[in-house]
Amino acid sequence: MSTYHAPLRDMQFVLRELADIEEIAKLPGYGEAADVADAILEEASTFATEVLDPLNRTADKEGCSWRDGEVTTPRGFKDAYAQFAKAGWIGLPVPDEYGGQGLPQLLLGPTLEMWNAANVGFANGPLLNQGAIEAIELCGSDEQKKRYIPKLVSGEWTGTMCLTEPQAGSDLAAVKTKAVPEGDHYRITGQKIFITFGEHDLAPNIIHLVLARLPDAPEGTKGISMFIVPKVLVNSDGSLGEHNDVKCVGIEHKMGINGNPTCTLNYGESGKGAVGYLVGEPNRGLEYMFIMMNAARFSVGVQALAIADRAYQSALEYAKERVQSRDAASRNPQAVRIIEHPDVRRMLMTCKAQIEAMRALSYVTAASLDYAHKHPEESERKKHKAFVELMIPVVKAWCTETSQEVCSTALQVFGGMGYIEETGIAQQYRDVRITTIYEGTTGIQALDLVGRKLIRDMGATATAVVKQMKKFAKELESSEDSDVKALGATLDRHIDVLADVSQWIGMSAMGDLRKAFACSVPYLKLWGVTAGAWQLFRGADRAAKKLAGGESDDFYRAKITTAKFYASHVLTQAAWYAQQIKEGSGDVMTLPEAQFDLDRKTAVTA
Amino acid sequence: MSTYHAPLRDMQFVLRELADIEEIAKLPGYGEAADVADAILEEASTFATEVLDPLNRTADKEGCSWRDGEVTTPRGFKDAYAQFAKAGWIGLPVPDEYGGQGLPQLLLGPTLEMWNAANVGFANGPLLNQGAIEAIELCGSDEQKKRYIPKLVSGEWTGTMCLTEPQAGSDLAAVKTKAVPEGDHYRITGQKIFITFGEHDLAPNIIHLVLARLPDAPEGTKGISMFIVPKVLVNSDGSLGEHNDVKCVGIEHKMGINGNPTCTLNYGESGKGAVGYLVGEPNRGLEYMFIMMNAARFSVGVQALAIADRAYQSALEYAKERVQSRDAASRNPQAVRIIEHPDVRRMLMTCKAQIEAMRALSYVTAASLDYAHKHPEESERKKHKAFVELMIPVVKAWCTETSQEVCSTALQVFGGMGYIEETGIAQQYRDVRITTIYEGTTGIQALDLVGRKLIRDMGATATAVVKQMKKFAKELESSEDSDVKALGATLDRHIDVLADVSQWIGMSAMGDLRKAFACSVPYLKLWGVTAGAWQLFRGADRAAKKLAGGESDDFYRAKITTAKFYASHVLTQAAWYAQQIKEGSGDVMTLPEAQFDLDRKTAVTA
Repeated sequence: MSTYHAPLRDMQFVLRELADIEEIAKLPGYGEAADVADAILEEASTFATEVLDPLNRTADKEGCSWRDGEVTTPRGFKDAYAQFAKAGWIGLPVPDEYGGQGLPQLLLGPTLEMWNAANVGFANGPLLNQGAIEAIELCGSDEQKKRYIPKLVSGEWTGTMCLTEPQAGSDLAAVKTKAVPEGDHYRITGQKIFITFGEHDLAPNIIHLVLARLPDAPEGTKGISMFIVPKVLVNSDGSLGEHNDVKCVGIEHKMGINGNPTCTLNYGESGKGAVGYLVGEPNRGLEYMFIMMNAARFSVGVQALAIADRAYQSALEYAKERVQSRDAASRNPQAVRIIEHPDVRRMLMTCKAQIEAMRALSYVTAASLDYAHKHPEESERKKHKAFVELMIPVVKAWCTETSQEVCSTALQVFGGMGYIEETGIAQQYRDVRITTIYEGTTGIQALDLVGRKLIRDMGATATAVVKQMKKFAKELESSEDSDVKALGATLDRHIDVLADVSQWIGMSAMGDLRKAFACSVPYLKLWGVTAGAWQLFRGADRAAKKLAGGESDDFYRAKITTAKFYASHVLTQAAWYAQQIKEGSGDVMTLPEAQFDLDRKTAVTA
Repeated sequence: MSTYHAPLRDMQFVLRELADIEEIAKLPGYGEAADVADAILEEASTFATEVLDPLNRTADKEGCSWRDGEVTTPRGFKDAYAQFAKAGWIGLPVPDEYGGQGLPQLLLGPTLEMWNAANVGFANGPLLNQGAIEAIELCGSDEQKKRYIPKLVSGEWTGTMCLTEPQAGSDLAAVKTKAVPEGDHYRITGQKIFITFGEHDLAPNIIHLVLARLPDAPEGTKGISMFIVPKVLVNSDGSLGEHNDVKCVGIEHKMGINGNPTCTLNYGESGKGAVGYLVGEPNRGLEYMFIMMNAARFSVGVQALAIADRAYQSALEYAKERVQSRDAASRNPQAVRIIEHPDVRRMLMTCKAQIEAMRALSYVTAASLDYAHKHPEESERKKHKAFVELMIPVVKAWCTETSQEVCSTALQVFGGMGYIEETGIAQQYRDVRITTIYEGTTGIQALDLVGRKLIRDMGATATAVVKQMKKFAKELESSEDSDVKALGATLDRHIDVLADVSQWIGMSAMGDLRKAFACSVPYLKLWGVTAGAWQLFRGADRAAKKLAGGESDDFYRAKITTAKFYASHVLTQAAWYAQQIKEGSGDVMTLPEAQFDLDRKTAVTA
């Protein structure tokens, strides 16, 4: 079994060369970002390797256990969480005034990646905790911020996001949990499911952020409010008081991410309802949720990339050691290490190219999140906000879908050993499978991309990004480096395909919305492979310039070779997606529902 | 959780309309095949549903246990195996003289599919047992056939195939197990791993077919012999004697197929070696193994298809019931069943189209196996043998790769519920993952396709099949039915792509074998999607003719709609594969091994 080694060099390359951390450091409050970046990366790497990684396999095997409403997390988690908090990792992006480090979202990219690569079950705690902190920070009252955020940052308490109900998964309009006013607070009654770390033994209190409906709330999404519901009520002096009426009635038995408990929480089971405090204004809960959603979706995209990178890393190590079969292209009968076999090499290159493209795209998107929040000029904030809005569903869904492919390919490299749990790679394969589902399935992300991001603004943002990519492709085409020049021509051609398909979907939407949505997932993937190429080729371009400038570093040579591989093996998927969308969108809804199972229903007749 | 319903109607359609069971029934000894087919399908369906399916989930949860060399299979397996044997299922394709039913390989298709869909862990027993029976039937002495086959058919004993050793997975040239002659038998010493049902409690004896080396054997693949090594020695009167020196020293802890034990067997641990009997001639063991390999690889292809069909079936049921989110293409705020959402519909259609293409292609290949064995004319036997040789790696690898996609898509339809083990779909996702690995990984199949099947005969067989498909496409193009006509034109275009790429690979092989092998997997997939289209479109053509002939049956309408969907959503993958092969084969080996992990190795420098 391999130990995780963080890809620090590539992270650093992306931060500096592609996401331009020096520019981020010019934003108000982020002055130290560039200076501390290296130290943060190194420390995070050490923490991930020394504290989190050793608990990864054991946590998967042990899982969490539930008894009479109490949940026990895997051995070592409690201590690791205390260390994690003490080292200040929880507060990385939280403003100083609440005890955080006030660092940009951009630095959350590599740190998140390391936590999730080392131990995704553990990392899901801080990931959701971060959501709760942001919810309170962005929408809570000053009193709420002061009361809750410092303790969520210090690790004394943890936070959850309670959205899902049995009848309301992707569809939050169907939320039924009730909130009835009572003095300065509300009484909450209802059931929430799939709540990550909804109950645990890491800290003495849990601050639940709960979506619920007021008695007079309008139906649907416009009648949902957000409440703070502490597991243990907090006295006015900040000390812990009575246990609130919220109970964990069970945890899920999942295929993976066994390190984190996934809880069913009942609110108000004992009668009167759990005490809750309204966050912000009534009926704006969903809107608040969407403010944070970008960060949460970004995080899941990076989580998937992290698991993929770890899987690739162990496959690479195995392929370098495992001796099996002679080289089919040689007359030498001696068996060789499997990395010498072209098919294994192709698999490893595919993983490597996809991972580097995902990393580049997601960190660059994180940088845009920072500009969108902090840039002094409104026009710049607006531009970046639009870019982020367009890219978040792509980062979330394309990275998670691609990471599942990477994990499967990595497992395949191991052959029969990959299917044995002790090898470890099977855990990555099981763990990563949730990422295309939670925080909005791939289908939901694609609907968001096509419906909210493409059709609603009549393609304005998409056109702007296409133009930006096109400009870059043209620059590459005039490069002195023949490889980079060729990459530019390939990218240019593919951007035209994307532009053409985008226009086609826009046109279709005017006639038949169903047809426009039918291939939204292939359309999202088309964005993913193209935008991934854009960022990976930016890297190749920087690398070529470094080499031309006299730096002799194989890291840069590898960047160019990897980009070329991506162009011919990954970006070529675009040909399929484009055909599928334009030729196949009309074929999606044509089979009547009643004809789906005629193959089974009709009895055998002689 | 869904109960399995066999797709009898589609099975019957493929058997009659595409694999032409009436013609198979004209082969010597297969006279009854067509008459009994319906009855066999119905009985198998009942057995699968009533006996095997109820044990599927419990077997996955319980798994097998090992203690002091003995293995306990999941509750109910022993009784189910007795019933399976009593009903005559083991002997389906075994000649009458050994107590079998003497039915064609073609009928093994649907029965195998039903066993594996209902309970893959259980079905792996008969699957491997069948291999052992064939090995003895094709290569054993008359005495061996009489002594072993009837008891393997009756279920009194079971059989295994013992190939793999720790250092010899795909590479059997590396087999080290020794066989030393001693009188009329041999003494076997060595270790075999990954042996399915290598030890169990289903029957009192196990007949191991073991690959080992004689003392004077040449190195590599030409020095391997095959031995019968019974777990319990058989006295000359057929009764059981002493325990042989073979011991199960452990079973694997796997990600799936938990119903069947996967054993490590030590031969000759106590000193003298286990008693073994040579099968056929010395040093021809690998050749014998390859005779059976086609059937075993075919079986794994069908196994994967079976699991995929089951997964699709439960996703379809769920999608028809689960109400979630309004129709994005309508103004109605009411939530609808998810099958009404275009993206879910696309996922279900993708599964359905891929499954029907896989079923058609694999059953048609099974029919060719029958012709290859039994056709009275040598030229026909030869023609079909060549077709089978070409198609087996495609059926094995394309069906298993595609089935993994189908299972993942089916899980995705369930959303969060898909990730919970109780739902059942996660089991299919875990179970199917082994199928691209055992009986030769996808990479091995692709190497076989390109090396042994394409390059070695200078493309003769591939060209013949391309010609056959091309002729069919031309026929379709002259159809009166406009849908079928369009399918013909699409197929025609794609066959040209396949022919072009095949030629390109042949040409590349002359210059650089490594380059020819580099994209062998995409090339195999190109064959899969194209040959799958061929068979699915044959079905659409038959269906159109039935409808034109006055039969009003929605099953036929669905066939045409499904084929059209396949054309635009699945066959379009060809565009990617072709580009990848021609543009990307040269990019596979270019990154030097030392540059693979520079992203990790280089320390952070400020």
